[in-house]
Amino acid sequence: MRVIGIDPGLRNLGWGVIDVAGSRLTHVANGICHSNGDDGDLATRLLSLHLQLTAVLQTHAPDAAAVEHTFVNKDAVATLKLGQARGIALLVPAQFGLAVGEYAPNAVKKTVVGVGHAAKVQIDHMVRLQLPGVVIAGPDAADALAIAICHAHHLQSAGRLQAALRATG
Amino acid sequence: MRVIGIDPGLRNLGWGVIDVAGSRLTHVANGICHSNGDDGDLATRLLSLHLQLTAVLQTHAPDAAAVEHTFVNKDAVATLKLGQARGIALLVPAQFGLAVGEYAPNAVKKTVVGVGHAAKVQIDHMVRLQLPGVVIAGPDAADALAIAICHAHHLQSAGRLQAALRATG
Repeated sequence: MRVIGIDPGLRNLGWGVIDVAGSRLTHVANGICHSNGDDGDLATRLLSLHLQLTAVLQTHAPDAAAVEHTFVNKDAVATLKLGQARGIALLVPAQFGLAVGEYAPNAVKKTVVGVGHAAKVQIDHMVRLQLPGVVIAGPDAADALAIAICHAHHLQSAGRLQAALRATG
Repeated sequence: MRVIGIDPGLRNLGWGVIDVAGSRLTHVANGICHSNGDDGDLATRLLSLHLQLTAVLQTHAPDAAAVEHTFVNKDAVATLKLGQARGIALLVPAQFGLAVGEYAPNAVKKTVVGVGHAAKVQIDHMVRLQLPGVVIAGPDAADALAIAICHAHHLQSAGRLQAALRATG
């Protein structure tokens, strides 16, 4: 099974794709979709992110998707901006017929690092440990890979639970 | 020229289409795209809004679009929700190649009613006055028609300015 993780942002939207076979994880690709003020007005930037992320899903054809469920508490303007980018991050996998998981940052950290309040450097370390040889495009791509790993673990747990229920049923 | 106004919201996304010929405005259509928690997870709701709004633009083929630039200050969760719906509201017209205007609620009120702090009932009244015979689908559709009227006025002012510049140039 192939899983894509997405860390939404208007300027930098990170993505990471991994393959999951049993407990074995393999890195497929990661990157960052960019949009900045020079690209045009907000609608044009969202369109650009939509096109870039659509191309990623076309190229890598994931079977499952997850998006970080986060919001800046800095101010309403920043939260609205993030929300708009997050709308695109959720829409694109849904347009490919994928169910989209959502995980709070603490849940991602807890799954990948073992504690909910891990530092960014720890996440980066654990992502590299679990995906040997990976070359990471940047911090947003590292977060996206962590989200994909988190989703893979949750899907595996759900699968094991179903198998156990079938065995006892 | 045909103008669509959009009042974004996750549960109720209002839209209103008007025709503009000189200073004459004519109502074309208005309505509300709905999504609620029963429709599925957030990604599914955003996909549903995207499909509904895409169908509106396919049916009515506007030449220009405007979206209300607003954010609830209630809390970050509400702002994030609105932002996600707003992402879709901005994306869809951009996908049809339209430039998307953005107006703060006060700018819309000032253009349509004459004062920046008009009550909802006043906006409704002025929309009905400027679009005789209109049947409004609900408050969100009334707001959307007000945004379309506001955008039409601004486009006309810009047009007159360009004409004046050409005449004097």
